[in-house]
Amino acid sequence: MANYVFGVDVGGTTVKLGLFDISGNLLDKWEIPTRTENGGVQILPDVAASVQAKMEEKAIAKDDVAGVGIGAPGPVDDNGIIHEAVNLGWPEMDLKKELSDLLGGMHVEGGNDANVAALGEMWKGGGQGYKSLVAVTLGTGVGGGIIINGRVVNGCNGSGGEIGHIHVEDNETEECGCGNFGCLEEYASATGITRLANRKLKACDKDSVLRQGEVSAKTVFDAVKAGDELAIEVAKQFGEYLGKGLGVIAGVVNPEVFVIGGGVSKAGEVLFDYIRPPFERTVFHGCRDTKFVLATLGNDAGIYGAAKLVLE
Amino acid sequence: MANYVFGVDVGGTTVKLGLFDISGNLLDKWEIPTRTENGGVQILPDVAASVQAKMEEKAIAKDDVAGVGIGAPGPVDDNGIIHEAVNLGWPEMDLKKELSDLLGGMHVEGGNDANVAALGEMWKGGGQGYKSLVAVTLGTGVGGGIIINGRVVNGCNGSGGEIGHIHVEDNETEECGCGNFGCLEEYASATGITRLANRKLKACDKDSVLRQGEVSAKTVFDAVKAGDELAIEVAKQFGEYLGKGLGVIAGVVNPEVFVIGGGVSKAGEVLFDYIRPPFERTVFHGCRDTKFVLATLGNDAGIYGAAKLVLE
Repeated sequence: MANYVFGVDVGGTTVKLGLFDISGNLLDKWEIPTRTENGGVQILPDVAASVQAKMEEKAIAKDDVAGVGIGAPGPVDDNGIIHEAVNLGWPEMDLKKELSDLLGGMHVEGGNDANVAALGEMWKGGGQGYKSLVAVTLGTGVGGGIIINGRVVNGCNGSGGEIGHIHVEDNETEECGCGNFGCLEEYASATGITRLANRKLKACDKDSVLRQGEVSAKTVFDAVKAGDELAIEVAKQFGEYLGKGLGVIAGVVNPEVFVIGGGVSKAGEVLFDYIRPPFERTVFHGCRDTKFVLATLGNDAGIYGAAKLVLE
Repeated sequence: MANYVFGVDVGGTTVKLGLFDISGNLLDKWEIPTRTENGGVQILPDVAASVQAKMEEKAIAKDDVAGVGIGAPGPVDDNGIIHEAVNLGWPEMDLKKELSDLLGGMHVEGGNDANVAALGEMWKGGGQGYKSLVAVTLGTGVGGGIIINGRVVNGCNGSGGEIGHIHVEDNETEECGCGNFGCLEEYASATGITRLANRKLKACDKDSVLRQGEVSAKTVFDAVKAGDELAIEVAKQFGEYLGKGLGVIAGVVNPEVFVIGGGVSKAGEVLFDYIRPPFERTVFHGCRDTKFVLATLGNDAGIYGAAKLVLE
C-alpha cells in the first residue's frame, strides 16, 4: 500500500504541485512556471521532472506513490482526454497517458481544473461532509465544478459545469471571452463586478466612494460593507444574475450545497446576502433549502482535488 | 436467472403496467385506475395485486421475475424515498420497501417518472446508443430526465432534472403551478404555447388561422407548417425560451443529445427549427453540437424505463 500521492494544478502562468500522504495531509507544496510556448509541449515534461525531483529529494520510492492527479484548464472527458485547452496551447491530447508515459507508467488521473477544485473542496474544504455540491469559482472568470453523489459531472465531452458561460442576459452588447453575449461570467466574475460598477458609475451622478480611485470587486464589496448606496446597487445586480443562475443550476442537478470560492469570495458571507434572495425567489421549491458556504482551500483546492482523483 | 421484469408508471389518473422479457421486449401492457383518495393509500396495493394477477395469468413463478420497477410523479432520491408526490396525495414514503413488502419481498426499484422515462428512451427509444442525454417532456407541463454516463441524476433530494421550473422570464405576472413566476413550463408546455398564442392574438390584429376555433399547441404548429405568420411568431417565442433554457442545461450537464417527447413533440422535427437557433446562439461553444432527436416510445417510455431500473 502506497503512502504518498501527488496533486498537480496546471494554470496559465504557474503549475502548482503538492505532495500529500494518502489521508490527504499536505506535506509539501511548490510551483513551477507554465511554459506555454510551442503549443505547451514542455508543460507535462516539466511536471514529470518536478515530481521525480521531489521523489528523489524526499527519498520516496515509485511504488510508495499511489499516483499523480492533474487538473488542467480545459474540458476533460471521463477518459482523461483534454479538448481545447486554449490557455495552454495544447492540442486535444490523452492527459492521463501522456503524463503516465513521462513518469514511467505511474498511475495518473486527470480532470478539468474547476471540477478538480470542487473535488478538493468536498474532500478537505468548505464542502466537507457533503456528497453533492456545485463549486463556483468567482475569479477573473467564473468556473464551476459539479459533483453529484460523489461523482464529478464532466459531461459527454468535458463541458459539464461550464457555468460561467450559461446565458443570463439577452441585452448584452459586450462580447464574453467565449464569443457569446450575456454569459454569467460577464456579471459575476471579478471583471464582471467591475464592469457592472463602472456602468453604474457612468449612468448616474450618485455620490459613491467608488468614484475615488480604481474600481475592483474588492473595492465594490468594501464599499458595500461601508453602506455605500451605489455599491449596494451593484451588489444587487451581481446577486440577481448569480442568484438566478445558481437557481437554474439547482433545478437541473439539485446539489446539497454551493461552495463559493475564487478571489471575489474573499468578500465573505456578505455575498450570500445578495445571492440568496433572487435564488430563493426563482428556484424550484424542492431546491429552496440548498446551502451556501464559502470555499476554504483557496488556491490549494486544485492540488487537493487532483490528489483525490487518484484515491477515488 | 430470471426471464421477466415488470415496469410500472404511476400517473395521476391511471397506472400503466408492462411485462417485459429481460432483453426489453414488451410482452404485455395494461392499465389500472390510480385511486388517489385517502392519501393514495390504495395505489401500491392495487399495483401489487395487478402484478400478481398477471403472474398468475401467465403462470410466471416469483423467482422467474427479476423485479418490479416503478416510476412515480414526485422527487425520488437515490434511496428510493419519494418526497411530496402532490398529485397522488402520498406522504413521504419508502417506495421501494413499501412495494417490495406488498410483493412478498420481490426486488423493487423506484424513480421519478420523468427520470424513468428518460431511461426508457435511452434503452429502447430515441436515445438508443447514447450514454448521456436529457429527456425533455413537453406535455401539460415540462418534465425533464437527466442521464449522464448511464446514471440518472436524481440530485440530493430527487429534485434533479426539474427543468420545467427553471427561471427563464423576469417579467411574468401569471403564476406557475409551482408558485413561482417565469418558469420554462409557462412557455414551452402545451399549455404554455397556448398561452403565448392567446397573448399574441390579443396583442395584435394580424390575420391568422388561429383566430378560427380553439387554440392549442397542435393548432399552433399545424398553422406554422401552413406558413401562418402569427403562428410562426409564437413558435419563435416558444423556441427562444426553450432553446435558451436547454442551452443553459447543456452548459451544466453537457449531454450528447436532447430527446424531445410529450404531446407537443407530435409536431415533429419542425420544433427543432425553432429551438436550435437560440440554442446555438447562446450555448457554451463546447456544447454547440449537442444533438436533438424526437422521443419514440410515447406513453410507454415510463414502463420501459421502470423495467430498466431493475436491470441496471
